[in-house]
Amino acid sequence: MNRIINFSAGPATLPLPVLEQVRQDLLDWNGSGMSVMEMSHRDKEFMSIAQESEKILRRIAEIPDNYKVLFMQGGATAQFALIPLNLLRGKAGADYVVTGDWGKKALKECGKYGKARVAASSEADKFTLIPDRTGWALDPDAAYVHITPNETIHGVEFHYVPDTGSVPLVADMSSNILSRPLEVSKYGLIYGGAQKNIGPAGLTLVIVREDLIGHAAPVTPGVFDYKAVADNESMLNTPSCFAWYVSGLVFKWIDSQGGLAVVGERNARKAALLYDYLDSQDFYSNPVARKDRSWMNVPFTLANPDLDAEFLKGSVAAGMRGLKGHRAVGGMRASIYNAMPETGVATLVEYMKEFVRMRG
Amino acid sequence: MNRIINFSAGPATLPLPVLEQVRQDLLDWNGSGMSVMEMSHRDKEFMSIAQESEKILRRIAEIPDNYKVLFMQGGATAQFALIPLNLLRGKAGADYVVTGDWGKKALKECGKYGKARVAASSEADKFTLIPDRTGWALDPDAAYVHITPNETIHGVEFHYVPDTGSVPLVADMSSNILSRPLEVSKYGLIYGGAQKNIGPAGLTLVIVREDLIGHAAPVTPGVFDYKAVADNESMLNTPSCFAWYVSGLVFKWIDSQGGLAVVGERNARKAALLYDYLDSQDFYSNPVARKDRSWMNVPFTLANPDLDAEFLKGSVAAGMRGLKGHRAVGGMRASIYNAMPETGVATLVEYMKEFVRMRG
Repeated sequence: MNRIINFSAGPATLPLPVLEQVRQDLLDWNGSGMSVMEMSHRDKEFMSIAQESEKILRRIAEIPDNYKVLFMQGGATAQFALIPLNLLRGKAGADYVVTGDWGKKALKECGKYGKARVAASSEADKFTLIPDRTGWALDPDAAYVHITPNETIHGVEFHYVPDTGSVPLVADMSSNILSRPLEVSKYGLIYGGAQKNIGPAGLTLVIVREDLIGHAAPVTPGVFDYKAVADNESMLNTPSCFAWYVSGLVFKWIDSQGGLAVVGERNARKAALLYDYLDSQDFYSNPVARKDRSWMNVPFTLANPDLDAEFLKGSVAAGMRGLKGHRAVGGMRASIYNAMPETGVATLVEYMKEFVRMRG
Repeated sequence: MNRIINFSAGPATLPLPVLEQVRQDLLDWNGSGMSVMEMSHRDKEFMSIAQESEKILRRIAEIPDNYKVLFMQGGATAQFALIPLNLLRGKAGADYVVTGDWGKKALKECGKYGKARVAASSEADKFTLIPDRTGWALDPDAAYVHITPNETIHGVEFHYVPDTGSVPLVADMSSNILSRPLEVSKYGLIYGGAQKNIGPAGLTLVIVREDLIGHAAPVTPGVFDYKAVADNESMLNTPSCFAWYVSGLVFKWIDSQGGLAVVGERNARKAALLYDYLDSQDFYSNPVARKDRSWMNVPFTLANPDLDAEFLKGSVAAGMRGLKGHRAVGGMRASIYNAMPETGVATLVEYMKEFVRMRG
């Protein structure tokens, strides 16, 4: 077995101890004589896995008691519809701050159910920055303000939680959830697909303030009514059990690392290692405003794109994968989520330097 | 490791060779240096897993070329809404044949989006039979006719495919899909949650005739528009990758057993072993009309329900699990899906006989 260094944007690398535990449990979880995949979600074994998972998440993310934690299906893309369906609450529309392609998709989907207003956008700047809060045109009657705290494709990240007054802040944290301490009480709703910092794809985490639920539009599919999901502890129907279990192991792993503060410091160091190198030379470059650069997804281009293919081929030979950039921005992208060790980023930087020595 | 005999109604027992393969691949799939859980769904590795999975499914289930196979999320319960949203196609409503609690739930959800008509129901008979086809009151203008070919709770199953003329037949096969040869061309749409005969929970299979898609209602969440899912080969957003991979291994296992005809014959033998015993004595009984008894879920009661707890406790001591009946019908239920070996059913029958010798 030869594990690669996996810079994939998601699904993404998982902590090795988590995978080893999954392998150990695979045919017989904790002496139950069953795989977790074979357990009824109503069995005491799975109920204990589910409850323990939420308990640890609540502790590491310091989730206040007046927030519900929902383990859903369908990914963030389903939430693009389910959020307006559940949260418009009879209001005419919602405000969207668009800082990348994911925010654009969320905005578009909201338009099916209400007025989706662009309160701010950095599209004219090719999504290389976060529009200054002072310039946002917020509607005090909006049902919510939607942001994408980290844009996976463009590599821009909010490094603060914007104040939206009494209008609830809704955040698609798919690609940066649990990457540093969360200030849950500043949000109305936080959501994210699991497949970056949480666990396997097929699970969607929703953390929602309980006063916001219970007002779903009549056309909301019943299984996606947040109130019904909450009232049934995410077991209105069979949940994505195995992904939930693996996520619980990831939460334990985060806890074992020292929690979100420690993980956040490590993520800041990893990002700094890569950005400091990017800023120290001109063979590679990153287009994002320094203050808004993502700790999770680092896009960069080679000054000479004719060398892209050779760069990628060499990276694979050096034991790395997933560095090809998204087609929307081209070049390269290193996704360096929680489970990417500092040594992985160091290996990448060394390879980048070596490539400059050969080809620069 | 001591594997139990698992009669759970779902999630349910999986074939041991499948679990062993999953364990072997867990940290490093096929020399890729990654777990399947860590692969980008756009990577050639996962694309090959996904395509191979669909290819084998199409072969074993003999799915005609004019049917799309969708690998979705949300379970059958999500489909209860997504089917009317996608298939009403501007028509006023749909017909439902209600033969158990799952059919009732499907009916109720359809009512949010159109007129949900009961074309036939066996509720007055406590769902112990399938209403005779000649008595169904079908509307020729219905968008579709919905049936639940196997009712997991009540243990009633269609042993034929009803003719609904030019109105498309839609079938919730969550608990009997792939349990015998499928006659796909007789249906407009077949769907099912994976967690009984397919693989882990978190994946929903939809097989749909292509002329029926492309007419989703405007309020359909975009990620659940069948046409968009089909056009993007079930990768409109990140799918439930790991469950999809395990399902592919289950499809291969079915193929290795000799395909659906062989699996179906085995399922018929397993069911006969249990029903023949149930009919040979009067300590236990099953209430379902003989012609409509399920091959997958066999509910039975003890003549003296005071012995239920002792029966269950003894079954656990004898290495069995999951025999407690659903609260709606009480007593016991043995779910004997594809992955339950004949020896498992034989062990149950021997235990039942032994219990009669002790307590009868």
